Amino acid sequence: MAKGLRNTLLGEMAAEFAGTFILIMFGCGVVAQVQAPGLGDHDSIAWAWGFGVMLGVYVAARVSGAHLNPAVTLSLAVFRGFSWRKVAPYAVAQTLGAFCAALLVRWNYTEILAKFDPGHTFKTQTVFSTLPGNGTLPVSEWGAFRDQVIGTALLVLVIFAITDLLNTPPGANLGALITGLLVVALGMAWGADAGYAINPARDFGPRLASYITGYDTAWRDQYGNFYWWIPIVAPLIGGLVGAAFYKYVIATFLPVQKKQEQGRAPIADV
Amino acid sequence: MAKGLRNTLLGEMAAEFAGTFILIMFGCGVVAQVQAPGLGDHDSIAWAWGFGVMLGVYVAARVSGAHLNPAVTLSLAVFRGFSWRKVAPYAVAQTLGAFCAALLVRWNYTEILAKFDPGHTFKTQTVFSTLPGNGTLPVSEWGAFRDQVIGTALLVLVIFAITDLLNTPPGANLGALITGLLVVALGMAWGADAGYAINPARDFGPRLASYITGYDTAWRDQYGNFYWWIPIVAPLIGGLVGAAFYKYVIATFLPVQKKQEQGRAPIADV
Amino acid sequence: MAKGLRNTLLGEMAAEFAGTFILIMFGCGVVAQVQAPGLGDHDSIAWAWGFGVMLGVYVAARVSGAHLNPAVTLSLAVFRGFSWRKVAPYAVAQTLGAFCAALLVRWNYTEILAKFDPGHTFKTQTVFSTLPGNGTLPVSEWGAFRDQVIGTALLVLVIFAITDLLNTPPGANLGALITGLLVVALGMAWGADAGYAINPARDFGPRLASYITGYDTAWRDQYGNFYWWIPIVAPLIGGLVGAAFYKYVIATFLPVQKKQEQGRAPIADV
Amino acid sequence: MAKGLRNTLLGEMAAEFAGTFILIMFGCGVVAQVQAPGLGDHDSIAWAWGFGVMLGVYVAARVSGAHLNPAVTLSLAVFRGFSWRKVAPYAVAQTLGAFCAALLVRWNYTEILAKFDPGHTFKTQTVFSTLPGNGTLPVSEWGAFRDQVIGTALLVLVIFAITDLLNTPPGANLGALITGLLVVALGMAWGADAGYAINPARDFGPRLASYITGYDTAWRDQYGNFYWWIPIVAPLIGGLVGAAFYKYVIATFLPVQKKQEQGRAPIADV
Repeated sequence: MAKGLRNTLLGEMAAEFAGTFILIMFGCGVVAQVQAPGLGDHDSIAWAWGFGVMLGVYVAARVSGAHLNPAVTLSLAVFRGFSWRKVAPYAVAQTLGAFCAALLVRWNYTEILAKFDPGHTFKTQTVFSTLPGNGTLPVSEWGAFRDQVIGTALLVLVIFAITDLLNTPPGANLGALITGLLVVALGMAWGADAGYAINPARDFGPRLASYITGYDTAWRDQYGNFYWWIPIVAPLIGGLVGAAFYKYVIATFLPVQKKQEQGRAPIADV
Repeated sequence: MAKGLRNTLLGEMAAEFAGTFILIMFGCGVVAQVQAPGLGDHDSIAWAWGFGVMLGVYVAARVSGAHLNPAVTLSLAVFRGFSWRKVAPYAVAQTLGAFCAALLVRWNYTEILAKFDPGHTFKTQTVFSTLPGNGTLPVSEWGAFRDQVIGTALLVLVIFAITDLLNTPPGANLGALITGLLVVALGMAWGADAGYAINPARDFGPRLASYITGYDTAWRDQYGNFYWWIPIVAPLIGGLVGAAFYKYVIATFLPVQKKQEQGRAPIADV
Repeated sequence: MAKGLRNTLLGEMAAEFAGTFILIMFGCGVVAQVQAPGLGDHDSIAWAWGFGVMLGVYVAARVSGAHLNPAVTLSLAVFRGFSWRKVAPYAVAQTLGAFCAALLVRWNYTEILAKFDPGHTFKTQTVFSTLPGNGTLPVSEWGAFRDQVIGTALLVLVIFAITDLLNTPPGANLGALITGLLVVALGMAWGADAGYAINPARDFGPRLASYITGYDTAWRDQYGNFYWWIPIVAPLIGGLVGAAFYKYVIATFLPVQKKQEQGRAPIADV
Repeated sequence: MAKGLRNTLLGEMAAEFAGTFILIMFGCGVVAQVQAPGLGDHDSIAWAWGFGVMLGVYVAARVSGAHLNPAVTLSLAVFRGFSWRKVAPYAVAQTLGAFCAALLVRWNYTEILAKFDPGHTFKTQTVFSTLPGNGTLPVSEWGAFRDQVIGTALLVLVIFAITDLLNTPPGANLGALITGLLVVALGMAWGADAGYAINPARDFGPRLASYITGYDTAWRDQYGNFYWWIPIVAPLIGGLVGAAFYKYVIATFLPVQKKQEQGRAPIADV
């Protein structure tokens, strides 16, 4: 099968699938381990999500560019010439990777989730998907929306900076490490209002996985309203805001204004 | 707009604005998340401030050199030939970036701050600006002044070392990572006496932002005295002390004593 | 002795011995320090195991390739042409290194282990070897088996990615650092069901060391069943699963499909 | 003063002074911050000591090789041809740097130490120097001696590996970062029996500084015996053990057995 398909869309979708799969294996995995038996704390969650991003990027970067996030893919299409016809396939592959990884986490932590949250309620819904104020803090849907726009803007702004060869990106192919630490910092500083989904695939895939495996709490928030669309729509908007900020505040002033590379390997392949 | 302005003062101010903006988005963000709902602890604060510095440097370094701190800018002017006429504009841009980011943090964490500190008192003043002994430990204004001189001296001494091409700076453009870890270590070891402002823009910008959004506690400390000038004056002095230490104890003995590069890109652009 | 033996099997076994020795000195060391006197917490365990892997790799990589894990060695034999006749010697050297290091940890923490667990029971058995649900969570032997297959698959999948020169491995010989952070993340996200042995030598060597130094709890789990074979068999299977995933989902689509390097220095020697 | 003294012993002593000074500013600083007001925990101590080592190495490496530790200096003299006539001057400079930094920490944290330990007892003696079992765990002087031999052997063994150009050292001048993480891991895994001095200068300099500033507990341990010589003698022995292990178990089998570089810049200058 290999030869003919090299670098084609199927390969790119496989890589986005695998990279997002790895991200969620670590991401949902750590929340299960912390939320249920209490092994670790909120910082463990921040670290393991960040390292999950880093490792997913190392796995996928050569083949697909390792977006791992529809908000990143959309921003690259709007601002860096990434092919529009690939946007939907990338988003599907990312969401599918997140969905499959969440099923595995759900399966592996079956006993522990059943022990600490027998009814499969909001208490461990956050293993899979986000809630306003993480389900306990007094943040409204609007507050969560606002938070996700800002958080994703920060994410994409910095990603655009550290993958821009005209700026000062990290060398030795360590952009993935710095991207991982960026996500660690986002978890520590921007995780209280809405659980820093900052990635529609990361939120929707595991949300669906939780629903089909017994979580009735998957689609609504603690106020009883549909919430699932907010961590999809707000990050997509936020990514565009961050990319625009980078373009007009920083890129405009970079020493040489040559045409940006086309949309391959935007994260690790510096 | 791009062509004519390349590398001019406007671009440099935009970069200093953006870099310091990012630093404060993570810095004040993490303190809000830890101080109010208790997501994370003092180490989270140290990590996220450090990573905020690292990420701000990556965004700004090519255009402005990523000082992000008037104490660094002043030290570079005195010891490394950075243009004196740019010192005030850099400081203004840095302070403005910090101010805007603090407003955004203030807005995003409105509900949480209101819930955990309804009166907007010293309890969450430390989200934005520093206090002697972080408002609770028995440290006087003099103790805080002394601490800020020493802490900023450490900061600038090490920055001067890891940006000196005649010494042994980190390669692969990872000076920003090491600078970030330096700030992490400062938070862990030099954060008890005065909250390690070690940066006049980082302290004054958010202090002003807190004042205009309802914090009456912005300008004085828990003893009732004006305190806001200490995290401005002491870091400026401390930076010069650290730079002088580096010059006379280390640089003097470096193998080749050729003229230092002029003051561009002193942090990440190794 | 040196000249004639260069790069021969004896040298490779010495390096695998030393590398796994270092891994276990930090790995069992940190669990002793956390489990008995309570210096540190579960995250300390994750960090120190990860750094132990990183340091062991730096010590052994040039001579033996620094597998440090029979599951890695077997996967390299099946998927990357590592010599089959070296598989058993490597596994013996790894297990012996782990055994000797565990004896040293046992000796150094004699007083502390005797103080906090005078009977040398399950309470500190976990300093040396793993148990289903870490001895306290309601996970069956089957659950632990499943968990070890998945965890080791994740480990080997990512190792295969970051040591594949056709993919985007970290440069500047920092593959060891990324591998270390991979193990940190595994500890944070995949450590609740079975203590993330993910390495037969890491588990069996210290288990034997604990048995001959007074731990009657070495071979069975808290349910009274023989358990010691699970952290041997499951990781060997899991490694093959992860390597196959990498081969068929990622490697197949890499830009150039040239023959992989033979099995030397697969981890750090990029 | 510069020209004539370049690279002479005075310069090297200045660099060793400065590097060890920085190490102790972070090292004793973090223990003061954690031990007295409780900002941070044992992991903060591990991180900040490790980063202190890293930063001290970056400052001193070009001029002196950044030993920062008499046990490292002695091992380099015995095993890597470092000039014997420089051993004592290096050790003096290191101890003096540690002494001065400890005085500054003592001064900066005057109020906090007085508040949390008014009598200046064993409770905060550990800010400056080590005790068997950190003053509270049931470890004898012999246990502490044994522990310091093993811990320093681990330190020097790994340092010899990651500074050996014939092995696989980290590139991009990041040996200092890996050395820092090595010290972090030592703190997490080998810090319970004797506080991981693993460095005679680190222990004796601050011990003396504490004595002349009011600590009567400086020289004896909690059992009433003289203890101060153990963290001097045991690390010196341990360093030689680790260096010999590296030489006979690893270096002997390295591909090319050419003569090692003479003893300059052994840590960061790869």
